[in-house]
Parts: sequence; structure tokens; C-alpha cells
Amino acid sequence: MRLAAVKEEMASRGIDILLLSEPPNHNYLTGYDGYSFYTPQMVIVSLKREEPIWIARAVERPQAVMSTYLSDDSIRTYPDDYVNSLVGLSAYDVMADVVKELGGEKATIGVELGGYYYSAQAHADFLKALPQAKFVNADLLVNWIRLVKSPAEVAVMRQSGRIADAMINRGFETAAPGVRECEVAAALCHQQILGTPEYSGAYDCAVVMFGAGERALAPHPTWTDDVLPDSTMIYLEVHGVRHRYQVNLARTIVLGKPTPEYLKFADIAVEALNVGLDAVRPGRTCSEVHAAYAQSLGRHGYEKISRLGYPQGVGYPPASAERTASLRKGDNTVLKPGMCFHMMAALWLEDKSCCITQPFVVTETGHEPLTSTPRELLVK
Amino acid sequence: MRLAAVKEEMASRGIDILLLSEPPNHNYLTGYDGYSFYTPQMVIVSLKREEPIWIARAVERPQAVMSTYLSDDSIRTYPDDYVNSLVGLSAYDVMADVVKELGGEKATIGVELGGYYYSAQAHADFLKALPQAKFVNADLLVNWIRLVKSPAEVAVMRQSGRIADAMINRGFETAAPGVRECEVAAALCHQQILGTPEYSGAYDCAVVMFGAGERALAPHPTWTDDVLPDSTMIYLEVHGVRHRYQVNLARTIVLGKPTPEYLKFADIAVEALNVGLDAVRPGRTCSEVHAAYAQSLGRHGYEKISRLGYPQGVGYPPASAERTASLRKGDNTVLKPGMCFHMMAALWLEDKSCCITQPFVVTETGHEPLTSTPRELLVK
Repeated sequence: MRLAAVKEEMASRGIDILLLSEPPNHNYLTGYDGYSFYTPQMVIVSLKREEPIWIARAVERPQAVMSTYLSDDSIRTYPDDYVNSLVGLSAYDVMADVVKELGGEKATIGVELGGYYYSAQAHADFLKALPQAKFVNADLLVNWIRLVKSPAEVAVMRQSGRIADAMINRGFETAAPGVRECEVAAALCHQQILGTPEYSGAYDCAVVMFGAGERALAPHPTWTDDVLPDSTMIYLEVHGVRHRYQVNLARTIVLGKPTPEYLKFADIAVEALNVGLDAVRPGRTCSEVHAAYAQSLGRHGYEKISRLGYPQGVGYPPASAERTASLRKGDNTVLKPGMCFHMMAALWLEDKSCCITQPFVVTETGHEPLTSTPRELLVK
Repeated sequence: MRLAAVKEEMASRGIDILLLSEPPNHNYLTGYDGYSFYTPQMVIVSLKREEPIWIARAVERPQAVMSTYLSDDSIRTYPDDYVNSLVGLSAYDVMADVVKELGGEKATIGVELGGYYYSAQAHADFLKALPQAKFVNADLLVNWIRLVKSPAEVAVMRQSGRIADAMINRGFETAAPGVRECEVAAALCHQQILGTPEYSGAYDCAVVMFGAGERALAPHPTWTDDVLPDSTMIYLEVHGVRHRYQVNLARTIVLGKPTPEYLKFADIAVEALNVGLDAVRPGRTCSEVHAAYAQSLGRHGYEKISRLGYPQGVGYPPASAERTASLRKGDNTVLKPGMCFHMMAALWLEDKSCCITQPFVVTETGHEPLTSTPRELLVK
């Protein structure tokens, strides 16, 4: 059980109380789902209490009642005048009171120091409100546990992968000379929510990436009002999301006839991707997978400066990557069945780019792709 | 000029160097636009240097070249192995080196302590790397300057407002008995990107809020796979975004025939909203506007527990509200022409909700609505 694993890790690190500020960890441990994390929101796990305590802004209470398994006493709130207060009211003081109620005045308290939702101000407020407590860095404590997915989670990731496939298909169908870039992007976002005929998709942890022409040379562009010309390259990165589990997938679409040189470049990129995927198996390290990919690419004189991949699973904005292992040189994380990665084998060079990627889950014997879009350049 | 105003405020507070971690402030001061802020990204303003320095991950460089006005020496990067490093590499150390290059080793340095993108870890890394510097809280320094929009910015906000109108229209057209909730949400997101026939929309700082039936009682729900019944209530909050400027708008759509009691409740909500809007004029305080609204609502025995409104403008995920002034009791911020707010006059009660809101800009004599959707219950 998730909570038991977290408590075990807390105990082994000597942490009495864990203050979780990251929204994916709220969802993972309580089921909570609501777009409310832009105001202070915390899940507090104590070794001495069975259920975690969820605490957020007062108006969010109904969302917690509807989406979590928590009993009434585990759902707490702070008043609305603590939101963006100009008179120094801090929601973290209210949370510190909960810590005191849990007997944590002198406890060892774990916090997610490097998380997206644990500001320097939040930490300063806690230090002031709990001067006798000992604060330790517990960033990624839950994330490392999340890294290995259960069969039920992998089943949801497969659904997310099917949505990502549907999005790439829709993008390929929609992109054509004379069409505005925004029309293609709009179609992608439409498909993202519509999902498949069987189930819908959820909102993105980031945003569809769309870069045509020169803008395909950058990794994180979005669309413009421009009309697509007869001949161009389009870089797409789409995100299928189901029940907050996200699967990323990128492809380069070529409108018009690619040059022989470019086709060769794309072949090299795909070959390296396939070599990297073939290297995936339990017991191997992330670094070893990267080495296989880099060696294949290097044979042709190319190098990828950004990491080859990142783990994905449950996520919220601003990003779905789990911030733990990376498919890169020197990362000695050992692969285990149930780990899910996006092998982000995109190449952005000064004069050209090629983005053909593959999300996958590590299996008992190798890997299983989470999407079925062909690993090739999409030429139209 | 924006940068001059920021430097003037820095000087008046005795700040030599300003470390800006918030993406809207990067856009505001350099033009930078890219979905890259989920890895460390900073804009550094020094009183002794004309241009700000933008610094982010190496792969983001082309995006900075394409979207900012900065000269080459003002665009800096850190290597990719600083992203989610497991061996203790910190991008903030590289940023601290830039501060040293600017002669800031013993400077007074302003940081956005309470921002979304300034983690406790970031602050700890800076304190360690610059032990002789004096760090002061400059959170919201730029945001307060952003609060008053120029005529050019207001013109973009009007475009965003038109996109928000188009989204509500599309939602009203699409919502019907037998339609899946996700189909309505997908149509809204499609319209959000498609924008209007004249111009496209950009991605959201948050996500379309969609709650039908019981879920309309919470402020931040999203869609499900459920089919809409013959008779229900749907709460929609949409966000029109143009050139990163966001305008929010919410409406309640009723499928079927509302009860006379509910129609009366909606009338009360609209009346209070209109009273609040009529109270807007330069020289009045946020608190005075709130008082007018609250008095109107209170005459009928109702009270709104969350703040009445928040300022909006340039934004990035996870939220567009500027975190400065609020339309609430006790906020003595004086309204000035060019300030833009979303009067979020939604009422979420235990047994019913009504969400009819109005984004507006403060004018010389009162207010101008930024959207034209009628302020009424949308019954279908």
C-alpha cells in the first residue's frame, strides 16, 4: 500500500511528520483531485496517525470530500483571507498548528525543499512557527516510491498512451498547407480532452508543443497565427492524460518532400531510439540505456545535449516528469518492472531537428511501448 | 518603460540586483515566451547593467533568441546535467556565478520569496553560494508594477476577453442532454486555441473549470465521462488568453427548467455583481468595491466567503492572478485606470451555486467590461 511504503521510508529516515506540498503526491496518497494547488495546499503524514491530513483553502473543502477517501477530521481548511494576504496572514501558520496538534512541536519534519509548490516563504514561515522542530529535506521521498508503477497504474498509463496516439493522428490529419498553426493545435487540444471513444482525457500537466519551420528548432514552442506553407517541418509533443497519469509522445511531421539528407538524419535518429529501447531491461541502469543510445548516435557523428528521458506517472502542472531518475550518463538508477519513462530521443541541432520519441514501461524481460504510433518520420 | 520602473523601485528599496523567478515577469521584462519554466529559469536585473540577463537550461537558448529583444551576451544557459541532478549540481550555483560577474558578491539582492518558482532549495543554494550578499524579499515588486496596464496591454486584454466570450458561447452551444461532459470541455479547449476568426488564443494559465450537478458546488472541478442528464446545472470558468494575457469568465448554464427559487437566487447574485461593478471607479479602494457588493448580497441574507476578485494580466501556469490586490474587505489598494480585475462573484453554497462573473478594466470614470457575454443565467 502506498501510504505504508511512505511511512516505512519516513521511519527509516527518522522523520516523524512529512509535509507534502507537491500536488501529484496529494493525489497519490489521498486521491485528491482539484485545480486548487495554486494556493497553499498540503498533505501531512504523521507516523502516529493512520490517515494523512489534507489542508487547503476553505472553498476547496467540497472537492476534497468528493475526491478523497479521507474522513471528515482529516480534511482541514484555512480562511480565505489567508490567500494573497497583504497583512501578513500565512496559511503555513495554520498548517503549523496542525503539526502542533499532532504533537510535532519538537518533531523531525520532512519537507519537499525542491518541489514546485514549496516556496522559500513557505519554509521561512514554518521555521518561524515551529522553532523547536528539526526540518529535513524529504524532497522526492514519495516520488521515488511513485517511480515503480503497480499493474493498475500501468493499465491507466496504457490508456493515456492511446490518447497520445489519437492526438498525433489528429495532428497529422489536420496539418496541411494553408491551415493556420492554431487550427492544428486546437484540434490536438480537442482530442486530448475527448480522448478515445471509450474514455475521456484529462488536462495537461504542461501544454502541447507545436513548432513549425524555424520554431521546430526549439524544444518548447507553441503555435502562432501563421498559415502552414506547402513545405515545412512541424514538431509536435503531445500529452495523453487519464486520471492524472500522463504519457508524452513527440513526432516530426513533414509537409512536402524531405531532402535525402534529412531522411538519412531521421533514419539515424530512429535507429538510435530503437537501440536505446532494445537496451531497456530490469537490472540495467539508466546510464547503460543512455550509453547504448549515445553510441548508436555517435557512430554517425551526432550528440544529444539534453537527457534522453524522464519518468512519468501521476502529474499536475507545471510538469509531469517525476524529477527522480533520468536516462542520462552517470545515472545509476537500476531499472525495475513497472517503471515508466518517456524516451525523449529528440534532436534539436542548430540547423535541423528530428523528434521521434517513445514512452514505455519496463517489463520483466525488456520494455513495452505505451503508444503504437510508428517510430518514423510522418511525411504528408 | 517597464524596465525603468522596475529599476526605480529597486533603487528606492536599496536593491542592487533583482533575481526574478516568476515566468510572467520574464515575459514582462524581456518578451521571453516558452514553456521552459519547469526547470530553473531566472531573469537577473542589475542597476549597473542596462539589459536584464536571462538564464535557463541550455536547450532553451533558441527560444530566447527568437522571443526576446536581448543581445547575445544577455542570454545565458546552464548545462543539461544540472536538470534534476542526482549528484548535487544546482542551476542556482550557475546563476550565482552570474551575480558575481555583475559584482554582486556583497550586494543587496532581491528575490521573489513567495513566488511559485522560487523553491526553498533555490533560496538555500543562493544563500550558500553568496554568503556575503544580503537577501531581501522582493516578492511582488514587479507584480505591483504590472497591476496598472498600458493602453496596449488593455487592447490585448480586450482580445482575450473576446476569446473568453467565444468559449462561453461554444460551451452553451455544445452542452445538451445526452452529451458527454468531456465533449463540452473538449469544445471549450478547442475554441480557446482557435480564438476568433481574426486571431488565435494561447494556452491557459490554469484549466477550464467544468462541474455538472453536484460537482458544480466546488470551485475547481473538471469534467468526467458522464453523460449530461435532461436537467442539471453546469458551472463553467473559461480563460481567454492572447499573447499570454489572460481574461477569466464564469457562467452557470442550466439544462432544463430552473425552479423559481433558483431563479430568484440567480437574480440576487447578478444584482450584487452589478452593484459591485457600479462601485468601481478610480480613487475608490478594493475594500469599498467589496463593501458595495457584500451589502447588496447581505440584504438577501447571503455571504460570499471567498474574495470577490483578483487582478489579471500576463500569466503562466499554474495561475494567472497577480497575487497583489484583492477585491476584499480590508484591502485598501486604490483603483487606478488600467487596472484589470476578474470580479469573481461566484457563490458556492452548501446546496446550490451560481457563477456569474465579470472581468473589467478600470477606466477614467468607472469600468469597462472586458467581455460581452450577458450577465445572466444561461438557460437551455
